[in-house]
Amino acid sequence: MTEFIPPGTRFVDLPSPFPMKRGGALHGARVAFETWGTLEASRGNAILIVTGLSPDAHAASTGDDPSPGWWEPMLGPGKPIDTDRWFVVCVNSLGSCKGSTGPASIDPATGAPYRLSFPELSIEDGADAAAHVVRALGITRLACVIGNSMGGMTALSLLARHPGLARTHINICGAARALPFSIAIRSLQREAIRLDPHWNGGDYDDSRYPESGMRMARKLGVITYRSALEWDGRFGRVRLESDRRDDEDPFGLEFEVESYLEGHARRFVRRFDPNCYLYLSRSMDWFDIGDSIGGSTEAGLAALPIERALAIGVQTDILFPLQQQQQIAEGLRAGGVDAAFLPLESPQGHDAFLVDIERFGPAVGGFLASL
Amino acid sequence: MTEFIPPGTRFVDLPSPFPMKRGGALHGARVAFETWGTLEASRGNAILIVTGLSPDAHAASTGDDPSPGWWEPMLGPGKPIDTDRWFVVCVNSLGSCKGSTGPASIDPATGAPYRLSFPELSIEDGADAAAHVVRALGITRLACVIGNSMGGMTALSLLARHPGLARTHINICGAARALPFSIAIRSLQREAIRLDPHWNGGDYDDSRYPESGMRMARKLGVITYRSALEWDGRFGRVRLESDRRDDEDPFGLEFEVESYLEGHARRFVRRFDPNCYLYLSRSMDWFDIGDSIGGSTEAGLAALPIERALAIGVQTDILFPLQQQQQIAEGLRAGGVDAAFLPLESPQGHDAFLVDIERFGPAVGGFLASL
Repeated sequence: MTEFIPPGTRFVDLPSPFPMKRGGALHGARVAFETWGTLEASRGNAILIVTGLSPDAHAASTGDDPSPGWWEPMLGPGKPIDTDRWFVVCVNSLGSCKGSTGPASIDPATGAPYRLSFPELSIEDGADAAAHVVRALGITRLACVIGNSMGGMTALSLLARHPGLARTHINICGAARALPFSIAIRSLQREAIRLDPHWNGGDYDDSRYPESGMRMARKLGVITYRSALEWDGRFGRVRLESDRRDDEDPFGLEFEVESYLEGHARRFVRRFDPNCYLYLSRSMDWFDIGDSIGGSTEAGLAALPIERALAIGVQTDILFPLQQQQQIAEGLRAGGVDAAFLPLESPQGHDAFLVDIERFGPAVGGFLASL
Repeated sequence: MTEFIPPGTRFVDLPSPFPMKRGGALHGARVAFETWGTLEASRGNAILIVTGLSPDAHAASTGDDPSPGWWEPMLGPGKPIDTDRWFVVCVNSLGSCKGSTGPASIDPATGAPYRLSFPELSIEDGADAAAHVVRALGITRLACVIGNSMGGMTALSLLARHPGLARTHINICGAARALPFSIAIRSLQREAIRLDPHWNGGDYDDSRYPESGMRMARKLGVITYRSALEWDGRFGRVRLESDRRDDEDPFGLEFEVESYLEGHARRFVRRFDPNCYLYLSRSMDWFDIGDSIGGSTEAGLAALPIERALAIGVQTDILFPLQQQQQIAEGLRAGGVDAAFLPLESPQGHDAFLVDIERFGPAVGGFLASL
């Protein structure tokens, strides 16, 4: 089992045992993180970023790791999340394979990878793990917690389970509960992996690896992260040059868009552990902020004790549709939070926050500057 | 190879050889169809319906086959497509497995099923085959050709290749060319089938059948035929009762929406031939009405010689998005056609035309009543 840990990664050990929401506990677990900027003596300038399913903690380049991070244009000196002012922490999700403990990690009780013996993973566990990192860094009150996509769920859970740990919140293309349409897509991605004979009940290695299943899952992911509108402008109906086609295969790749998907998938399948993918994917399906108070989603949102919030969504997002960010803003407002809802017209779908910095930069930067 | 032919189906033999657009020809091929209503002596009251990928010719119940058809609420005496006035013909697409000749049919040259030796299938071939049925019934001028989804492509192609055969056209959730987003989805469906070891290069039988691949393809289809909005109201986050769950499978079905998809897929996989699915799916990717004049999509639309048209789309359709029906109406208008674009607010996505009769009925019925 290969883990994929950026070179500048640092680690915080979780309490051992670390109890999991749905039962069981982790022993000797850790969370990977990176930081940018300088923590003030008052410790009042800290921001936490919690991520989507696949990113590592390397959101932007650092002295230890000058390679560009996954949110490079958003995070740094003078950028929207301005590290001249803010001390920024990004954690790799618990259950991932990018440094934090997950199903691909070694179980100290057996000396072998957990695989499917890893306890059931919830968004709430990821929130508890992230909160532990924050406190381990000596921070008792975050200026803001920013959550993207799955991280938008993690952030809401952190606010519910660790009241007072954050003053404000930016929710980006996130959700207060999983929708059945998104559950259906994730369920199909998991089925593709599980149907691959090389998945073998989670017991694969590098030589027998569920490559086809991961490729299908990733392609479906990329399709749902983008939008019809964007791809029409980007790919149109352009065909592959004949030297990039396999004329022996009557159903092989023919259009540029198919080649784009294939390339995306090939880069991903060996860089993310399939069991970790299954665990993180399922954790999203289970999430409903209403569970935090044993009530409705709306009641769960209204109970979150923060001062201000901004929920940003994108009109072309089919995976976490705009109504979900509107629900977050309205739910928080019902609880007395000064919460704004910002729908953006980005053509890029769910992934717009990674690429449409022209729209997301001012939105995020403006909110932070006003704090 | 099983074909699935409704009991009331009738047949028209195609000319033999029947040349195919991309090369090759069919010998001894036929097209399945059904009719409703009575053809006037003037033969001026005929309507042709061309379908989406999977339907058969049984659009509505008949005396020969009283079982409900796939468009039962839309078609019949006093219904929006009123068979007291209109003589209606519905054809099963060439290349399908519901009575018309396709890859699952017997190749008379070999006495064995065509499988992948079937010639490359284009939307244009389906249009030529449908036009032949119309003429074989003694009809030289249709009052209207109605095309749904893939049938919207077939109808446009028929108008281009058989000028004068139809006076008017209703395009429902169709497209003048395939978009890269839709190509990506269909490409992934085809990949799921082809990855199934039981597909075996197209050489399967009932005992070794690409069931998993077809199930994946169908689930992805159903996901893209519907919408997030509809499913939230319909399924929410309801869990399956414990007696419907497999507690031994940690990633098994848990939510009602997963069970719904599974049920849909199970009903489909043995009722549609996998090779036919591949051929029909690919034919959509290739389609661009601009090819009919060797020019742009817009120019292809502007060249279509009809009097009036109506293009209907649905705001929640992610597979044939609304902009595509708008493009059809605008393109036809640029060619001097009296063409209207009607966007509907149905929550049901691409499949709305099958279920949202409340909106589609008046739209289709109103247009036909005005002829």
